[in-house]
Amino acid sequence: MSTAGQVIKSRAAVAWGANQPLKIETVDVEPPRAGEVRIKIISTGVCHTDAYTLSGQDSEAVWPVILGHEGAGIVESVGEGVTSVAPGDHVLPLYIPQCKNCEYCHNSKTNLCQKIRVTQGRGVMPDGTSRFSIDGKPVYHYMGTSTFSEYTVVCEISVTKINVNAPLEKVGLLGCGISTGYGAVFNTAKVEKDSTVAVWGLGAVGLAVLMGAKEAGAKEIVGIDINPSKFETAKQFGATQCINPLDYPDKPFQQTLVEKFDGGFDYTFECIGNVGTMRCALEAAHKGWGVSVIIGVAGAGQEICTRPFQLVTGRTWKGTAFGGWKSRDQVPELVEKYLSKHLKVDEFITHNLKLEDINQSFDLMHKGESLRAMIHF
Amino acid sequence: MSTAGQVIKSRAAVAWGANQPLKIETVDVEPPRAGEVRIKIISTGVCHTDAYTLSGQDSEAVWPVILGHEGAGIVESVGEGVTSVAPGDHVLPLYIPQCKNCEYCHNSKTNLCQKIRVTQGRGVMPDGTSRFSIDGKPVYHYMGTSTFSEYTVVCEISVTKINVNAPLEKVGLLGCGISTGYGAVFNTAKVEKDSTVAVWGLGAVGLAVLMGAKEAGAKEIVGIDINPSKFETAKQFGATQCINPLDYPDKPFQQTLVEKFDGGFDYTFECIGNVGTMRCALEAAHKGWGVSVIIGVAGAGQEICTRPFQLVTGRTWKGTAFGGWKSRDQVPELVEKYLSKHLKVDEFITHNLKLEDINQSFDLMHKGESLRAMIHF
Repeated sequence: MSTAGQVIKSRAAVAWGANQPLKIETVDVEPPRAGEVRIKIISTGVCHTDAYTLSGQDSEAVWPVILGHEGAGIVESVGEGVTSVAPGDHVLPLYIPQCKNCEYCHNSKTNLCQKIRVTQGRGVMPDGTSRFSIDGKPVYHYMGTSTFSEYTVVCEISVTKINVNAPLEKVGLLGCGISTGYGAVFNTAKVEKDSTVAVWGLGAVGLAVLMGAKEAGAKEIVGIDINPSKFETAKQFGATQCINPLDYPDKPFQQTLVEKFDGGFDYTFECIGNVGTMRCALEAAHKGWGVSVIIGVAGAGQEICTRPFQLVTGRTWKGTAFGGWKSRDQVPELVEKYLSKHLKVDEFITHNLKLEDINQSFDLMHKGESLRAMIHF
Repeated sequence: MSTAGQVIKSRAAVAWGANQPLKIETVDVEPPRAGEVRIKIISTGVCHTDAYTLSGQDSEAVWPVILGHEGAGIVESVGEGVTSVAPGDHVLPLYIPQCKNCEYCHNSKTNLCQKIRVTQGRGVMPDGTSRFSIDGKPVYHYMGTSTFSEYTVVCEISVTKINVNAPLEKVGLLGCGISTGYGAVFNTAKVEKDSTVAVWGLGAVGLAVLMGAKEAGAKEIVGIDINPSKFETAKQFGATQCINPLDYPDKPFQQTLVEKFDGGFDYTFECIGNVGTMRCALEAAHKGWGVSVIIGVAGAGQEICTRPFQLVTGRTWKGTAFGGWKSRDQVPELVEKYLSKHLKVDEFITHNLKLEDINQSFDLMHKGESLRAMIHF
């Protein structure tokens, strides 16, 4: 029996406020309006960005909210005028949309479609309202995706159809962490063959950078983390060696790196979100041509600093969001790359949990015990 | 009668210490040793970098020293093994050398030849000694050029032969300011046709950026300075409009610019050396693709800061030294471009002074009354 056009009762993990455990609730999910798509989520990853918002550091946060942005699912129904996906399509929701019609979408240098930025930031659909409610009171959307719900509603420009053969219990990870790190290598830094690379933070994003750097043909790929239990996995993803900054307490770590690695690295990537390591990564980039890419998200109001001399002597400081991918066009290509075994996804999944155990996934992440826990509905 | 092989008595403007007026002295200039070239300087520009060192902000400064790095002259004699220039050649001394043999010279992404960096920074020739003395006591070299002397000695890798038709009383300016601003446009930022550009600081370097931006086909070129008397000249060099930040005191100036100029500029250039305007220039670059280039030299120990979000949302922060030109190879090309009237030089020269009046050129510069004063020996 079709559920199209009807309110669906959906199990969802609701965040009621900062630093509170998520609570499993039954949420009313309205049908999609014009230009919207309702998706039955099969599985979702849990990302540091979800934890960041839940921690209260995200100044844009609204409560109550359904977090989650690494989901995969099947289109349940579509609103008026939707043409790019249809019920039954396998899809990934996308926290960076691609309207293909704004100044940003028309510019090959950026993937930051701005079409729905304001309402997405406020936790609502473009018409200013939410599709989620409990007892008639709104529950807000998150990043335009809200994948911690069995059913979610997203804009058509925030969803992309993928190969039906892709395992929905896994490929949600291509909706954020893996694509972000991997894309930073190719789209943002444009790492070249035989170059040298260093990566700060060996979580999922950092490992995806290692994977990309290896594919790009980098000759030296150094993984950096203060948790050495991550080094073995990092080597499996492409690190040629790993270093723990805590082993070099005597001077600024960038100085150690510049000395140990022949003047520094051609490309450095910060995948932590710490302004101190962002500076370190910039200053460990090679004089003359080193490029440093910020991927991690810093706490609200925090600032990066360096001496301008670092830039005047040839270093470049950049950043990336979602690895620079034009989301609707390119995420399906990443799925194909995974299906043809040119991109790892399975290897990022260290835990599989039921929705009811979602809080456990945050604990695992904070302890550094998981790369990605997948939540299955 | 040849002076080759002999000590030459040379008139020179000597800096005896920070914040003291230069003093015209008779200096002994030794013959060039192996790999060195002695040049009779015809004319020299006076640059803010000379003033910066004289002000005591340059932590590398040594005293007494002969400043100057925008000179042009004629080779008087060469040391053993010198093959690329010969007595009588018209030449420009170069503060960034090009040995064509180091890791930097081999890398197309940088012009920062490192071959003699350490000794140049210490104010001596590569063998650790100075060629200048007064009463047997050493007077130090500066930036490998020391063009405030009628005769100077430089390394072969720090000098380039130019077209004999180029007026030596003018083209010294291609040894620093003009080339730096102009090169930042083409080599560092790579400004594209129909892009938008903003330039902080409308001195010689800033004007050279305007000139380059116009040549690159930028459709909007905004000159920014707190001294509106510079606006007329800026427009002659290519500015489509000029703005005085002091006219917009109510909010951060970058916010004003982002609002006035459709989200900000494709390319911004800081030509002042103020860490506050460096931040402003970065944050006035357009989200998604804006590139900001630092050209100005900040005071020792000063730091640039911004929120990392500025980079994560697509801005790029870079810097440039000598506009990215591979000096010995490319400065002669710039001279040709000037001779064929595709590059302005004459228009930068607002004053012509004798060596004896060199301190006046610093006063004019500090008052913002000169673009470049040329000193003639």
